[in-house]
Amino acid sequence: MKDPKIDLLAIGNAIVDVLAQADEAFIAHQHKVSGMIKGGMTLIDEARAVELYAQMPSGIESSGGSAGNTIAGFASFGGKGAYIGKVAQDQLGEVFRHDLKAQGVLFNTQPLAIGAPTARCLILVTPDGQRTMNTYLGAAVELSPIDIDEDIVSSSKITYLEGYLFDPPQAKEAFRVASELAHKAGRKVALSLSDPFCVNRHREDFQAFVENHVDILFANEQEAMALYQTDTFEQTLEGLKGVCEVVVITRGPQGSVVMAGERIVEITAEPVSKVVDTTGAGDQYAAGFLFGYTRGYSLDVCGRLASMAAAEVIAHMGPRPNMKYADFLKKAA
Amino acid sequence: MKDPKIDLLAIGNAIVDVLAQADEAFIAHQHKVSGMIKGGMTLIDEARAVELYAQMPSGIESSGGSAGNTIAGFASFGGKGAYIGKVAQDQLGEVFRHDLKAQGVLFNTQPLAIGAPTARCLILVTPDGQRTMNTYLGAAVELSPIDIDEDIVSSSKITYLEGYLFDPPQAKEAFRVASELAHKAGRKVALSLSDPFCVNRHREDFQAFVENHVDILFANEQEAMALYQTDTFEQTLEGLKGVCEVVVITRGPQGSVVMAGERIVEITAEPVSKVVDTTGAGDQYAAGFLFGYTRGYSLDVCGRLASMAAAEVIAHMGPRPNMKYADFLKKAA
Repeated sequence: MKDPKIDLLAIGNAIVDVLAQADEAFIAHQHKVSGMIKGGMTLIDEARAVELYAQMPSGIESSGGSAGNTIAGFASFGGKGAYIGKVAQDQLGEVFRHDLKAQGVLFNTQPLAIGAPTARCLILVTPDGQRTMNTYLGAAVELSPIDIDEDIVSSSKITYLEGYLFDPPQAKEAFRVASELAHKAGRKVALSLSDPFCVNRHREDFQAFVENHVDILFANEQEAMALYQTDTFEQTLEGLKGVCEVVVITRGPQGSVVMAGERIVEITAEPVSKVVDTTGAGDQYAAGFLFGYTRGYSLDVCGRLASMAAAEVIAHMGPRPNMKYADFLKKAA
Repeated sequence: MKDPKIDLLAIGNAIVDVLAQADEAFIAHQHKVSGMIKGGMTLIDEARAVELYAQMPSGIESSGGSAGNTIAGFASFGGKGAYIGKVAQDQLGEVFRHDLKAQGVLFNTQPLAIGAPTARCLILVTPDGQRTMNTYLGAAVELSPIDIDEDIVSSSKITYLEGYLFDPPQAKEAFRVASELAHKAGRKVALSLSDPFCVNRHREDFQAFVENHVDILFANEQEAMALYQTDTFEQTLEGLKGVCEVVVITRGPQGSVVMAGERIVEITAEPVSKVVDTTGAGDQYAAGFLFGYTRGYSLDVCGRLASMAAAEVIAHMGPRPNMKYADFLKKAA
């Protein structure tokens, strides 16, 4: 087995975020008229995206996508990263591509030449810092097994997949291909469950995939409970014990729990003076954890790096680092 | 004379900003290879925009443009605003349009159907909060006298023009048309000098325009000194006295000075705990001042509103409000 050239390959829906501040009344109204769920991720079609955008306050645009955010954070720590995801040949696609390349991330997926535009996520950030996401997948649904570059997968220590990819059918297939290639090359596969509603939509697929393909699993409390429909956090921990080599469950301000074999490590959350926008919290947590993991750091240090990255990203608007995460390394050591 | 339906019409280069954090070494290197001037605005062509973007760190996108920022801030105070500026029919153009409409600003300028893309400004923000701008004007240069809607100009209490429009030749002509229409309708014309380098490029045109067409002039210290090539702030004040009905000179943390006839009002700057990004400081100062002015507030209160808006915008990345400026009204009264 050759030494891997890439520390982490992330595969996900390539999305540009449109972030706007909205009040509770806006979300309440949208919930009534469209079923928008505060704190959740709702899939929307192009017509609805146009309609909702017209109703949204002015915002800022930032490259996003769960796995895209993770690989950007991972590279900010100093890790060698690669990304696979589908943008269109348009301005937002260029922005997405630029922002990964600028972080030193290898990103060569062929853009979609004809068809839907680059995916966008309309994100409403309420005064409590909570984000409510509305995703028009656009070109991202065209990600297919053809896009999975075997060379890159087999050169990557870990292939990291976002659960949101269970929504587009071809992407789910791409997923399987990637994880089989990774394991064939003796590498590891990591998965984030992404969203409890997404888990509910594809529960059996998720269960089978987690049990058969995943070495490192990330989930927040709600997602973890949704996976096996458990009622308490204790039941959830018990149910997930030993399912994967490493299981990481995040609990927002209550910190996180890492289970590896018989070991259970509790990580306290890093304090944040003001939560501005929780977009990207889980993504940057995964970035910090996986950076530590690929460097062979102890689970405690992995969790500490994870918590610091998550704390940084929720203190400002947008899902990606506003600083060099490598600066955290001294602090965590 | 009918009662004006619009408080402020702003005319400017319609630009989407791409903001990235950069270190001093990046600017120093770019200065050497391309003549980029820290703190200034450099006009660049499409090829250079592509080249510079490829070298820039990852960033965020925000609607920008000096007059666009001002009208967004003005609307955030609760004023009725309109905007004239040229975007292309592309994704960045849609973003620009959305962000003004979402603030309740009337914006009906026909987009450019064929030709250059929407203008973008590549902004490098150094750790001291200073912004260095590189503007590819794209579709914005196509703004021409045809785009000046007489109805809107004559319905607006004040028509506000950004000095940057002196760069594209047709826009300069659009400028003259707008100011003549405004005065014909008995309205006022305001101008921001925008940038000392821009003033140097077009000094005589600026002098003639200020003396013949402008009722309310905004300039920072460097721009004001560039206009008549004065050496000291005292000389500059003396030289500008009486040139327009109202002359406002901003001095960053040293506050600002308002001259109206024989009156000179000094305004202290609002304190800011940390300057994150000075992009939009002058634009939001003008927004606050003009809001107060169109409401008939005293020059002191106009200056206070101006300083509060400027202080808000430099405390975060991006050139437009992150809050409702109307909340400042109680505080300033």
